[in-house]
Amino acid sequence: MTTKKSAYAQAGVDIAAGQRATELIKTAVHATFGPEVLSGVGSFGGLFDISKLKGLAEPVLVASTDGVGTKTMVAAALDSWDTIGQDIVNHCLNDILVQGAEPLFFLDYVASSKLDPEKIAAVVGGAAQACRAAGCALLGGETAEMPGVYQPGELDLVGTIIGVVDKANIIDGSRIQPGDAILGLLSTGLHTNGYTLARTALHGLDWQTAHPALGQSIGEALLAVHRPYLAELRQLWEAGVEVRGLAHITGGGLLDNPLRIFPTGIGAVLHWGSWPVPPLFSLIQQRAQVPEQEMFHVFNMGLGLLVVVPAEQAALVQQILGDAIFLVGEMVRGERQVTIV
Amino acid sequence: MTTKKSAYAQAGVDIAAGQRATELIKTAVHATFGPEVLSGVGSFGGLFDISKLKGLAEPVLVASTDGVGTKTMVAAALDSWDTIGQDIVNHCLNDILVQGAEPLFFLDYVASSKLDPEKIAAVVGGAAQACRAAGCALLGGETAEMPGVYQPGELDLVGTIIGVVDKANIIDGSRIQPGDAILGLLSTGLHTNGYTLARTALHGLDWQTAHPALGQSIGEALLAVHRPYLAELRQLWEAGVEVRGLAHITGGGLLDNPLRIFPTGIGAVLHWGSWPVPPLFSLIQQRAQVPEQEMFHVFNMGLGLLVVVPAEQAALVQQILGDAIFLVGEMVRGERQVTIV
Repeated sequence: MTTKKSAYAQAGVDIAAGQRATELIKTAVHATFGPEVLSGVGSFGGLFDISKLKGLAEPVLVASTDGVGTKTMVAAALDSWDTIGQDIVNHCLNDILVQGAEPLFFLDYVASSKLDPEKIAAVVGGAAQACRAAGCALLGGETAEMPGVYQPGELDLVGTIIGVVDKANIIDGSRIQPGDAILGLLSTGLHTNGYTLARTALHGLDWQTAHPALGQSIGEALLAVHRPYLAELRQLWEAGVEVRGLAHITGGGLLDNPLRIFPTGIGAVLHWGSWPVPPLFSLIQQRAQVPEQEMFHVFNMGLGLLVVVPAEQAALVQQILGDAIFLVGEMVRGERQVTIV
Repeated sequence: MTTKKSAYAQAGVDIAAGQRATELIKTAVHATFGPEVLSGVGSFGGLFDISKLKGLAEPVLVASTDGVGTKTMVAAALDSWDTIGQDIVNHCLNDILVQGAEPLFFLDYVASSKLDPEKIAAVVGGAAQACRAAGCALLGGETAEMPGVYQPGELDLVGTIIGVVDKANIIDGSRIQPGDAILGLLSTGLHTNGYTLARTALHGLDWQTAHPALGQSIGEALLAVHRPYLAELRQLWEAGVEVRGLAHITGGGLLDNPLRIFPTGIGAVLHWGSWPVPPLFSLIQQRAQVPEQEMFHVFNMGLGLLVVVPAEQAALVQQILGDAIFLVGEMVRGERQVTIV
């Protein structure tokens, strides 16, 4: 028995599969909704009531769009999908956190050459899980089937986050002084950057069984979920720590990202060896013979977020966050650059 | 003479090209900034001051994420990039307009297997042009190079829009009554949906020279820019028209999209022949032998936006908008479905 396909399905697009993916996702997404969400899944746009923001003196929305890069290809190679859903949310959370923003809501976009409802449900389920943990609504999203644009079996995953900060509380680095302490919050691994280089470097190795240097398989190490730092920063703010600057270490690595918040005439010195570096980075460096300077330019090298505070508050920060944070350097008078010594 | 490439570039990622694309885009993007935009291009997240929204009784943000589907492949085939930038903005504008929202800001995401700065600058330049026309800030964006995920030469383009509406003014179709008039605003062509089927249907024809049935080339007809309807709706609201329902005709065509706003026990009848249908649709239908019902299920068939108003206001709407709008049907008691007669 054969099933007659519609002309649209023959051309490679399956509307029913898209609808099935939506059904699978609904419950997980609804669990992220607070009372501010006025719309359901499937309406044209998501509705989010911001009446309570009228209580802020000068509310400022903070918005960011990003992807997880070719970490999607690692997910495809290992057929493991929920973690990249968490990755994109946590990446976006950190991107607005560094300006002092609390998240309001998140939207996702998943596209591939062929819609696989179970795969997409796993990705969006992971996103919903991370949203819920952060108190962020998964307000909307889109799945797209684009035969001919994507390579078979691959997908792209894009997230957009909207948060809010009262204008007086925006963190932009302008209050950074020479002598301020730089503390680093540990990453879980590559987070969402440098995967093209990492995959090339590790190509041909066994990704499935435990690697002696890693204590886990290469696949597991590569898929480690991007760590969100919202909870840690909330602790610091509650304790009254004066956070003068935050840098999320993404594409551009430890060398480029911090520059975005340095005032003119101030640079940073980081002390190599002052924080633990996940062994995955050494493995990549050795395999691809990457110069050390380029490693710092591509990867986070173990530090997912840099926190700049007055030197006299460094001990308090370490007392609050314990093993998760390390004193890794200081701000210095000089060129707007990061020097690693 | 050879240039030594970094390990990251050898793996297929060019950080410098990404930075060059950012430079090319900056001026066009800055031109979309009003006084509410507090951030520049390149900061972690975009900052948008919403202090003035405190003047609304109950401000509600309306958010939507979407892509332009495989219209990107038409752009690639014709090496024409600025129009899809306009498409994605206009598509998103309409998606939140149907709930009554005015746009605040937009974010874009462009990804491909290899970063081509000029191509990306053209796409984002088009987006900036459409944003500026709508009074919407292009607040942020991301470009991603993902070798192995995308087919060579292809790209994907994703947009996210955030708008606002006062809660009492949300349009959700709940006030629609049997007997209400349905007016249709004309589309320019396929807008951003049905391209996979259209490309299959038109494969093998000459896309470059004027086609007798179209009065333009197939390529030009396929690339016609998605029409935004914000200006038309502003005119209706200013004139005091009671807009009870709006449906943006996107994926799912004339049959699925209107259902999203129909109250229980109310359906719609559209009168085939009451509006002009662009000849591109007939050409696609003939070439791929698509059943008529499926044409309505995939394409907008010439109507980009349906507007539901009380029957006694239909004449006023036509007087205000003239040739751009047609009386195409009416709401009827019955099943929640669209019947085309």
